[in-house]
Amino acid sequence: MLNFDFYSPARLLFGKDTEKQIGELLKPHAHKVLLHYGGGSIKKSGLYDTVTASLKKSGVAYVELGGVVPNPRLSLVHEGIALCKKENVDLILAVGGGSAIDSAKAIAMGVYYPGDVWEIYEDGKEIEKALPVATILTIPAAGSEASGDTVVTNEEKQLKYGYGSPRLRPLLSVMNPELFFTLPKNQIANGVADMMSHVFERYFTNTTHTDLTDGLCETVLKTIMKNAPAVLDDPKNYDAWCEVGFGGTVAHNGLVGMGRAQDWACHGMEHELSAIYDVAHGAGLAVLTPAWMQYVYKDNVNMFVQFATNVMGVEGSFRDPDAIVQEGIARLRGFFRRMGLPATLKELGIDGSKLELMAKKATGAEFGDESAIGGLKPLLWQDVLAIYKLAQ
Amino acid sequence: MLNFDFYSPARLLFGKDTEKQIGELLKPHAHKVLLHYGGGSIKKSGLYDTVTASLKKSGVAYVELGGVVPNPRLSLVHEGIALCKKENVDLILAVGGGSAIDSAKAIAMGVYYPGDVWEIYEDGKEIEKALPVATILTIPAAGSEASGDTVVTNEEKQLKYGYGSPRLRPLLSVMNPELFFTLPKNQIANGVADMMSHVFERYFTNTTHTDLTDGLCETVLKTIMKNAPAVLDDPKNYDAWCEVGFGGTVAHNGLVGMGRAQDWACHGMEHELSAIYDVAHGAGLAVLTPAWMQYVYKDNVNMFVQFATNVMGVEGSFRDPDAIVQEGIARLRGFFRRMGLPATLKELGIDGSKLELMAKKATGAEFGDESAIGGLKPLLWQDVLAIYKLAQ
Repeated sequence: MLNFDFYSPARLLFGKDTEKQIGELLKPHAHKVLLHYGGGSIKKSGLYDTVTASLKKSGVAYVELGGVVPNPRLSLVHEGIALCKKENVDLILAVGGGSAIDSAKAIAMGVYYPGDVWEIYEDGKEIEKALPVATILTIPAAGSEASGDTVVTNEEKQLKYGYGSPRLRPLLSVMNPELFFTLPKNQIANGVADMMSHVFERYFTNTTHTDLTDGLCETVLKTIMKNAPAVLDDPKNYDAWCEVGFGGTVAHNGLVGMGRAQDWACHGMEHELSAIYDVAHGAGLAVLTPAWMQYVYKDNVNMFVQFATNVMGVEGSFRDPDAIVQEGIARLRGFFRRMGLPATLKELGIDGSKLELMAKKATGAEFGDESAIGGLKPLLWQDVLAIYKLAQ
Repeated sequence: MLNFDFYSPARLLFGKDTEKQIGELLKPHAHKVLLHYGGGSIKKSGLYDTVTASLKKSGVAYVELGGVVPNPRLSLVHEGIALCKKENVDLILAVGGGSAIDSAKAIAMGVYYPGDVWEIYEDGKEIEKALPVATILTIPAAGSEASGDTVVTNEEKQLKYGYGSPRLRPLLSVMNPELFFTLPKNQIANGVADMMSHVFERYFTNTTHTDLTDGLCETVLKTIMKNAPAVLDDPKNYDAWCEVGFGGTVAHNGLVGMGRAQDWACHGMEHELSAIYDVAHGAGLAVLTPAWMQYVYKDNVNMFVQFATNVMGVEGSFRDPDAIVQEGIARLRGFFRRMGLPATLKELGIDGSKLELMAKKATGAEFGDESAIGGLKPLLWQDVLAIYKLAQ
């Protein structure tokens, strides 16, 4: 086990009707909040009315900024920063999924940053300060409700960059699984692929003596995979949603990756797909992850045998390690198919024309500054290209 | 799954040499700390010198109060409160195991409480404020390094009471498993029984649809049980200590019990043993837990079959649920025996003379205010007496 620093202070209020407490929860922390959300779905569902009524009842003033889109955009972040400054906002309340929360985090740090907030994403410099962020989650997927991470797309530059800081961990997050009942099936499936990937990125490691976090990762993956088909088939299945939703938070609050080198190559490779083709992050991950496994597993066969056995339930009748791994990958593909997720870049609407460009962007080679991505097997641009081709 | 409120903000710095950072870690939070510890072991081991050197180097002033004993005493807490007030201490640094940390938490809230701090333990009233507490753990067991709980013994009244508040969660805790290398075997074993009990108290529940936390509980238990014999046999086994130590924190930081009714009868019954006979908490739990299982399992056979199967590895050849449960309990007894723990009250030096008194104290019947203890099967004093007798 490696040395680690675990800090995950986001409070999670979980369960039925918890969103009705939002005003009372925020009152000790804020006089005026920025209510930040996406399209009209929270208005249609009545959640907007519930939230604003609760804020009013508790005497918490608010201004609002809607319009967050999947792969949230820098231009709206700029707008939010200006609005927060003008209105003296002291907390940002994101109501939505990972995109609204990531956009809120970008605004939260941008308010105190003297230059263009995009510089933080480009340089990775440590921020000094950020407004507190609270969230009401409507799509379990990104894990952003507990993490210190934010991913934003610079639509002008066609770049999708991530940034992380302990100062961006939400103050508190509210998760009522009933709010997930109206999600369309493709968003359910994309979310499940995203949260599973958050575990995979931490699980696949060359670090040894990691019994506890191995087991935690495997438990989160098995819980999600057991319950996800149930919510896909019946999006009003509260009990199954509880497991998937809570699982998505634990997948990304940091715990399951402590003390182990992490990978994150699939996320890096997927960000290039989303930046250029604006595909759903989870769908991109579902396509890339099995291809990545196929390409890298020989560098640590034992780790992938453990995955196949402990997570995918491959039994001892497959004696040969390669056969066990292949069966594990095949079962993962089968699970993603069961969830209605795409299996190839082609199904995502991505042709072969920009694979090399994306591979070079993912590794920095495009900018003359190549560095390998991925912890288990470091990948240069030719490796990334090979994985994109395996996923075609 | 039940609604829940998860808040576990204690930062955990884990690994080799982390204790050397303590001055630098505390500097942003404190001008003057109370260094609170037990006997001479931290002086013999050199840890005292390391810690004070680090504080001095960072310019953090300190006063000190040693003398914490297992089952930490109210009289020393009173002394600590007076010292903190006199010296204008703004943070308490506990260096030790659960006793030093629990004593530190008692002092931390006592500083701001106008009456006798024991009233808080008696009444359970919500505290408004407490000094921040930081910890350097030398005995993994109590989980107090991440929890908001404190247990203190009023030696005059022979009462051992617990209290919990989110305001008592440590600001940060430092865990270097190398500091555990010099622990005597009985302290290792007691610690392991204590941390396992923290999971058991959360695991055994009548709440249904708890896949995720079931799995998390089972993983923590299996990880501890796999690695504990290795540290017992070789207390310098760093890798195994990492699993046990980190496991002990996860066992009690709150996560594995979220969304489920919890039990805590064994802790309640054990506190009576410790209060009167001053036995080690973990040893008491090792004696009582199998007896409790024997007494209550028929109220939820499925839960105990799951325990026997998923945690104790009882295989399908035991077809009868009762036989599966019995084998699971027998294997748990075997594990405790392997750790050198006592199996009966007699081995703890407790005769039958005060069993009824303890049963009545545990349930409040002694004070004319009986209420059942335990979530899975509510126990009145006659039930507790029956369990004590099973454990004789």
